Amino acid sequence: MSIVIYNSLTRKKEEFKPIHDGTVNMYVCGPTVYGLSHLGHAKSYVSFDVVVRYLRYCGYKVTYVQNITDVGHLTDDADEGEDKIAKQAQKDKLHPMQIVELYTREYFEDMDALNNLRPDISPRATGHIPEQIEMVQELLAKDFAYEVNGSVYFDVTKDKEYGKLSGRVLDEAESGTRVDVKSEKRNSADFALWKKAEPNHIMQWNSPWGKGFPGWHLECSAMSMKYLGNTFDIHGGGLDNQFPHHECEIAQSESITGHPFVKYWMHNNLVTVNGQKMGKSLGNFVTLKEAFKKFDPIVIRFFILQSHYRSTLDFSEQAIEGAAKGLEKLQNTVQRLRNEIPKERKGKKHFSEVLEELQKKFFDAMNDDFNAPQAIGVLFEIARETNELIAVPQEASHEFLVTLNEFFTEAGETILGILPERKGAAGASAEPQLMELLIQLRNDARKNKNFAVSDKIRDDLKAAGIVLEDSKEGTFWKKQ
Amino acid sequence: MSIVIYNSLTRKKEEFKPIHDGTVNMYVCGPTVYGLSHLGHAKSYVSFDVVVRYLRYCGYKVTYVQNITDVGHLTDDADEGEDKIAKQAQKDKLHPMQIVELYTREYFEDMDALNNLRPDISPRATGHIPEQIEMVQELLAKDFAYEVNGSVYFDVTKDKEYGKLSGRVLDEAESGTRVDVKSEKRNSADFALWKKAEPNHIMQWNSPWGKGFPGWHLECSAMSMKYLGNTFDIHGGGLDNQFPHHECEIAQSESITGHPFVKYWMHNNLVTVNGQKMGKSLGNFVTLKEAFKKFDPIVIRFFILQSHYRSTLDFSEQAIEGAAKGLEKLQNTVQRLRNEIPKERKGKKHFSEVLEELQKKFFDAMNDDFNAPQAIGVLFEIARETNELIAVPQEASHEFLVTLNEFFTEAGETILGILPERKGAAGASAEPQLMELLIQLRNDARKNKNFAVSDKIRDDLKAAGIVLEDSKEGTFWKKQ
Repeated sequence: MSIVIYNSLTRKKEEFKPIHDGTVNMYVCGPTVYGLSHLGHAKSYVSFDVVVRYLRYCGYKVTYVQNITDVGHLTDDADEGEDKIAKQAQKDKLHPMQIVELYTREYFEDMDALNNLRPDISPRATGHIPEQIEMVQELLAKDFAYEVNGSVYFDVTKDKEYGKLSGRVLDEAESGTRVDVKSEKRNSADFALWKKAEPNHIMQWNSPWGKGFPGWHLECSAMSMKYLGNTFDIHGGGLDNQFPHHECEIAQSESITGHPFVKYWMHNNLVTVNGQKMGKSLGNFVTLKEAFKKFDPIVIRFFILQSHYRSTLDFSEQAIEGAAKGLEKLQNTVQRLRNEIPKERKGKKHFSEVLEELQKKFFDAMNDDFNAPQAIGVLFEIARETNELIAVPQEASHEFLVTLNEFFTEAGETILGILPERKGAAGASAEPQLMELLIQLRNDARKNKNFAVSDKIRDDLKAAGIVLEDSKEGTFWKKQ
Repeated sequence: MSIVIYNSLTRKKEEFKPIHDGTVNMYVCGPTVYGLSHLGHAKSYVSFDVVVRYLRYCGYKVTYVQNITDVGHLTDDADEGEDKIAKQAQKDKLHPMQIVELYTREYFEDMDALNNLRPDISPRATGHIPEQIEMVQELLAKDFAYEVNGSVYFDVTKDKEYGKLSGRVLDEAESGTRVDVKSEKRNSADFALWKKAEPNHIMQWNSPWGKGFPGWHLECSAMSMKYLGNTFDIHGGGLDNQFPHHECEIAQSESITGHPFVKYWMHNNLVTVNGQKMGKSLGNFVTLKEAFKKFDPIVIRFFILQSHYRSTLDFSEQAIEGAAKGLEKLQNTVQRLRNEIPKERKGKKHFSEVLEELQKKFFDAMNDDFNAPQAIGVLFEIARETNELIAVPQEASHEFLVTLNEFFTEAGETILGILPERKGAAGASAEPQLMELLIQLRNDARKNKNFAVSDKIRDDLKAAGIVLEDSKEGTFWKKQ
């Protein structure tokens, strides 16, 4: 059983072989914390969360680093424009670090809600200024960079492999001549390693080239190599970061070390809204906080995983409502299975070839470049089989149901994170237990034709935002 | 109405006058994130949380900075021994930054549970290496510091005011001679600004004095002045940090700027356990995670605020159980008041001189060096009056109960944080509403002598960890 990964660098699926047996060093580009996270963030971080979860499930010791960009990300990719965080700080009349604090917290709150595991290390760009200055010094010493007016740029013409990730070829307009007469760059494709700060720029540090701040691309090279080594296994990020961000990371890192930077590059595709590109300027931007008002975060997670990470994800309320219904079916099956286990059963079946085969199909899907949508499809097939097994008491044995439940826990909870257990732990909400009790009381009242009580329960629950749904399989509840 | 603060620097109570009208810049020493937070942390951060909350309630725009120490805090105050985080990392076979990540998260989880507001900025020591190196350079240039073997020390004999906070006088043994022949310090009271790192030390940075890391005291000077200015209003911390930590902060900062560092120094007293000093080595160390297993975090908060921040707090299970009972009474009164408000009332009273007087007493207590225990005592008196008012329907008017409820919200929720509202917002637990419904169903069942149902409700709730308590005022519930 081996895992195959689509490597953006080689543009083909490759068998995954980590650099050091049994361990995986993995870096994913984190958010620039100047605003609320949106569906695009959710798609990226849920995708890589499943990668981490599955690799850990397969026994690898994964060190997962995901940075927090809190300086240097400019509004314009061509190294011009304002710093996104400084701009937001000015708008909100707060210190940039207050903006960083606020949105870092909001970010993790949203990611926790999506059931993403926390990264092992979340390094911040401002926390690695010395490391970044030292890299600039090395690139200058090795003649890959040049200084102009207190800024330092990487000279892309010095790196023969520049463009190998994105496949972009430097044409003459880009590499040979200075297109923009106002620019201080030698070649328009050159990128900033260090930017001179204007006196009123609030985020600035002393450097050998005067006061300034690091270029956006540099932090990811500095922080990934600091915590994961000069060559590490997996670098992930959104497709929109492949160029220029990741291309620049490779150029900087490999020019310094002379070694390959990353073995496997993974890129998730983007989110569209009703078929249109999603963007702030297009006004179709959906923050997670907004989405969570309408939909359970686990439904959003499930919805994201219903398409492959390398496919685009089209957001529409109808599509999510469809996903919600699907997830509910899956949850109901697992709940029925778990309700059935404590009961006495006379079933004899200890093994089912069909289920064995389906479980193998689940892992085949996950091994094939983390094909979560296909794996989820298989889960539905398994759920159908499970429903049939439960329906007939003389069918499956108690032990077999336990094994089946273990599989749902592994597949749905540990690997995909879409079926988190509703726990009644100390301090946690006792909601599930209270709901179970209320549903029993209502059913008893109905049996005894005490409709005053059963109606009261239904009505009061509705007032508390909880809807009951009666079906052949029993009564289920959901929050509105 | 003016606030009076006990200033540890002048050793007397002073009227609080912020440096800039209407704004308060406040810094509190945060945790060293190498282990779980304990009751000592809770005492300190709950105390200063109430200071922040009350100043904000009084209309001040408070900027609250609280650092995260993630490097440089050695196991020995005399600048020897291991880095606490590096030591823990070695023990757990993790990167120091994984230790930092883990325990920073646990810290905020515990503080959130205690209902402490988040600081506006939580700067990390490793995120301010350049700032710290520059301070060392300035202290060397001004001859307050000297370099030995790649380490830099502050020469306490050069600072004529050294000792002014703690009141310690440098005697000859400390200042004149080198007591410890192994030490590279000129005077034994000198302290490290920068420590040389041994080659195998994992947390180190380049500096003008070779590879090393900042001394523990330096970070707080660097980060407080960076975000709050050279002179700011309030610096808080535990009494155990007064010397050497805060004394050293003053020495470093004032030697560089030539200006007073802090206007008001505030120190909270320490926690004892059954009358004994609390400490890891004494084996009577209580982490918050452990405490929260037995007690609602809000009970711990209430228990802490029942003694003044400048008094010691003696922890014992009995004392907390007593606090829990007290808080429950207060909660019950507020709950009864809130249940009463939607009902029709024929009461006429719009004003009560007794209550007016008591509310004034509440604010007098808060104005007197944030005397929370006294303020809580007044809340209990108000609660007694409230109970009497509610009991007689022809007594207080609807409007008066509304005003009274607003006071409880301000005093109990906004200022003291001990009566957080149980919300039924989207996504939040509907537990309170479900419990209300279950209590009604049980009471109806008992009235109808349907004891099978009422017993089932009580028993099932008990199994879910919820206990019902019947009293004259009605049925209340609590989690075990």
